[in-house]
Amino acid sequence: MRVLYSDDVLAHVPRSEMKHGGMIPARESPARAELVRDALAAQGSFVFEEPSRAVPSALARVHDSDYLAFLEGAWPRWEAHIGAGNGGETPDAFPLIFPVRTLEDVRPSVIDGELSYYAMDTGTPLTAGAWMASLASVTSAAQAATCVSGGERAAFALTRPPGHHAAAGKFGGYCFLNTAAVAGQTLLDSGARKVAVLDIDYHHGNGTQSIFYERGDVLVVNIHADPDYEFPFFLGRAGETGRGAGEGATLNLPLARGTDWSGYSAALGQACRAIAKFGAQALVVSWGFDTFEGDPLSTFQISRDDFARMGERIAGLDLPTVIVLEGGYATASLGENVLAGLAGFAAGGRS
Amino acid sequence: MRVLYSDDVLAHVPRSEMKHGGMIPARESPARAELVRDALAAQGSFVFEEPSRAVPSALARVHDSDYLAFLEGAWPRWEAHIGAGNGGETPDAFPLIFPVRTLEDVRPSVIDGELSYYAMDTGTPLTAGAWMASLASVTSAAQAATCVSGGERAAFALTRPPGHHAAAGKFGGYCFLNTAAVAGQTLLDSGARKVAVLDIDYHHGNGTQSIFYERGDVLVVNIHADPDYEFPFFLGRAGETGRGAGEGATLNLPLARGTDWSGYSAALGQACRAIAKFGAQALVVSWGFDTFEGDPLSTFQISRDDFARMGERIAGLDLPTVIVLEGGYATASLGENVLAGLAGFAAGGRS
Repeated sequence: MRVLYSDDVLAHVPRSEMKHGGMIPARESPARAELVRDALAAQGSFVFEEPSRAVPSALARVHDSDYLAFLEGAWPRWEAHIGAGNGGETPDAFPLIFPVRTLEDVRPSVIDGELSYYAMDTGTPLTAGAWMASLASVTSAAQAATCVSGGERAAFALTRPPGHHAAAGKFGGYCFLNTAAVAGQTLLDSGARKVAVLDIDYHHGNGTQSIFYERGDVLVVNIHADPDYEFPFFLGRAGETGRGAGEGATLNLPLARGTDWSGYSAALGQACRAIAKFGAQALVVSWGFDTFEGDPLSTFQISRDDFARMGERIAGLDLPTVIVLEGGYATASLGENVLAGLAGFAAGGRS
Repeated sequence: MRVLYSDDVLAHVPRSEMKHGGMIPARESPARAELVRDALAAQGSFVFEEPSRAVPSALARVHDSDYLAFLEGAWPRWEAHIGAGNGGETPDAFPLIFPVRTLEDVRPSVIDGELSYYAMDTGTPLTAGAWMASLASVTSAAQAATCVSGGERAAFALTRPPGHHAAAGKFGGYCFLNTAAVAGQTLLDSGARKVAVLDIDYHHGNGTQSIFYERGDVLVVNIHADPDYEFPFFLGRAGETGRGAGEGATLNLPLARGTDWSGYSAALGQACRAIAKFGAQALVVSWGFDTFEGDPLSTFQISRDDFARMGERIAGLDLPTVIVLEGGYATASLGENVLAGLAGFAAGGRS
């Protein structure tokens, strides 16, 4: 299997995030990508390819242009705003307030106001390298899609930070640019008439859902911790089924705390049936490994062997498949978990 | 002048707040109220009165019932959720994510989800004593209004945390319950037909504006740092003039960075003319002293003498007046600044 990877994804080095009333060391780290890279490289059956640096054309089709301009220029503005007074290193950028109900959704002109306008949470530090790493990730995702459109069975975009929480004009949940959405849009732009996104991260992929919510050409299926008890709290309920042309093209399968393989497997079966029924010509898998039983962010009880089973089942759909890496914060286990999942996929494919 | 004050306002002891990408010591502290109390007590011309503990009936008319229930019960739930794993002290409670655009404004069932649902920013730690201090503050504000309705020229509610950023169902900007709104509603409930709220904190009083935005019986006038460059960013523009029955009953006078008395005085004149024209029968002043030239949060250049001038001008409206304390973070100067403002008011009154 081809692996799209660039060392540029290591450029985003967040220091801390807000959690449980204080700052904790950032869980989403460059080491995640390095360990996955090393595990796959050691295995021998993966072909690594570095993506070109050309910005994928699909990027502007899934993200707002003002948001992209903001992200690209945010760090120097933040540094100029904050840096002088601090002496030492400029801290990562965080928002202050959010345009929630009773406030107006208008864009202020100062950098901390803009951060507040474009952010959705307190856990996503914007760093000096966030744009470079995110851009490398969407570029990898787009080129993985191009490989698959060109006839390859599957390709893996080894990306970070993850992407599925990023909406057209909002960052959050460690995500800035939506890799899965860019991959899906690239598949469509390369000729597929209908594409499915299967999101199997522990957390609901609110960004991907919202980007495609009113479109009938992309089915978005999420299997995830019920937002009634888990981040992102404000999207991912079963009643959300799409709107307008997208009515019926969103499927949410929220699961209870502590779900193990038996519960997960049933949801995965339902997801695969929906994808087959939709008539997708290509598939994007937003694969987060934070469903793992050893993950610090998860309550699910999914084992390494279960990841192999997931891969087999997904391969059974027999669709050209782009796999993008989403979450997974049991960092030391991440390489082996990804390897298990991809090996399962390879074993399960008919071709 | 009567001063409504309870030591219960000292119960809220926030430790830290998020600012500029990290946690900094909380600026809104019990010492603020203690220093104001001591400065007024030393002066001799103020009559201190402790409010009864009866919950003011106006509270349920300006805040949502689900929000009040949440605030009252939030701390023990947070403690149960967080405390066990930490060993030491339970950290102050903060939200994780906000129901901004692309997300749904639905209430989750877990405590960190509810915190996220009811919060608007990352700078407002919810503590063990937040409810007690906030309740004491709205009780003081309501009883100050009752004094004024009963014939007293003016009364001062020595409250903290401040209140004017708190909306009907949202906390933020250090505020949980809206003292000015409770005072205004109490004045109406005691017989006033029309009430004006004059907000002269450095920051726009978004909560007060939103609470009365569709009502024609309360004029809300704000003089504040332009939200284009200053917190709360998402409300307080000149174009916001009220809605429905409240059309024309909101006046925003946003000011440029570095405004001094000459610029401020002109806005205050405009505000006073609007209040006179509205035909208010009573006045609530949301008085924040963070316009002070020495305030760490402010860019304005207002001196202690200017606070006395403000008081005089406001007294010149010759209305029964409830003054509630909002912000002011040059803590060591706060007592003297409040004293100057109230002395100016006393000197300026006709009666």
